[in-house]
Amino acid sequence: MTPRRILETALYVRDVEEAEAFYLRVLRLKSLVKDPARHVFFRCGDGMLLLFNAKTTRTEMTEVNGVPIPLHGTQGAGHMAFAMREEEYDAWVNQLQTEGVPIDAEVVWPQGGRSIYFRDPSGNILELATPALWGMTE
Amino acid sequence: MTPRRILETALYVRDVEEAEAFYLRVLRLKSLVKDPARHVFFRCGDGMLLLFNAKTTRTEMTEVNGVPIPLHGTQGAGHMAFAMREEEYDAWVNQLQTEGVPIDAEVVWPQGGRSIYFRDPSGNILELATPALWGMTE
Repeated sequence: MTPRRILETALYVRDVEEAEAFYLRVLRLKSLVKDPARHVFFRCGDGMLLLFNAKTTRTEMTEVNGVPIPLHGTQGAGHMAFAMREEEYDAWVNQLQTEGVPIDAEVVWPQGGRSIYFRDPSGNILELATPALWGMTE
Repeated sequence: MTPRRILETALYVRDVEEAEAFYLRVLRLKSLVKDPARHVFFRCGDGMLLLFNAKTTRTEMTEVNGVPIPLHGTQGAGHMAFAMREEEYDAWVNQLQTEGVPIDAEVVWPQGGRSIYFRDPSGNILELATPALWGMTE
């Protein structure tokens, strides 16, 4: 048996409120669930983007119906990519520029596809990429 | 403009070959691209799971067509979740047990949905979860 798809993607942030504001302003993602001391969660397509404050999730055990959830949490720059359509490329560059977000790199991949790299306030390396990069349709 | 979906989910591992073997054996994910010193990538549904050796990605700059890709890489236990169907639950527990992977927690969520938590060899907290956990269809 193999998983059908990925359901949750997680990054760790230094401040939940700051992160929520950035992902709303720059990526127009509206938070679904928030605990300012611990996490903010966004739906994106048929997946979830989970942003955690690792200071909390590394040290404070959560229990659900009496079952402890394993601790997790990282330090340093994580990475994830959102899908964009080829036709949206210029509009994404404009949106990042309008929102004052520096673009770290714009890449044309040898195998096809294009990416835009930028950072969130915690230093995570975010990417917008066309699925052609992985031989997928948009 | 907002992203339509998540395309790439990344975790960091201590050893690429060890990680590739674990994700193949336990999750039946076949690697698509591998550089033993740096990364192994898997396709999962319409997304990609990227496993990186952070010792490499934090320090060694990659260039694509002359454009440097920003460095990234974390330390500590990352997290992500794969989708499973409700009807697959028992079979997943069996598969983990057959492959000798300890289950850290089995959770029934108050809002609906169920999760199984386990670890990869690098200590990342992996989860199999039914999409009902987020109010989504399977």
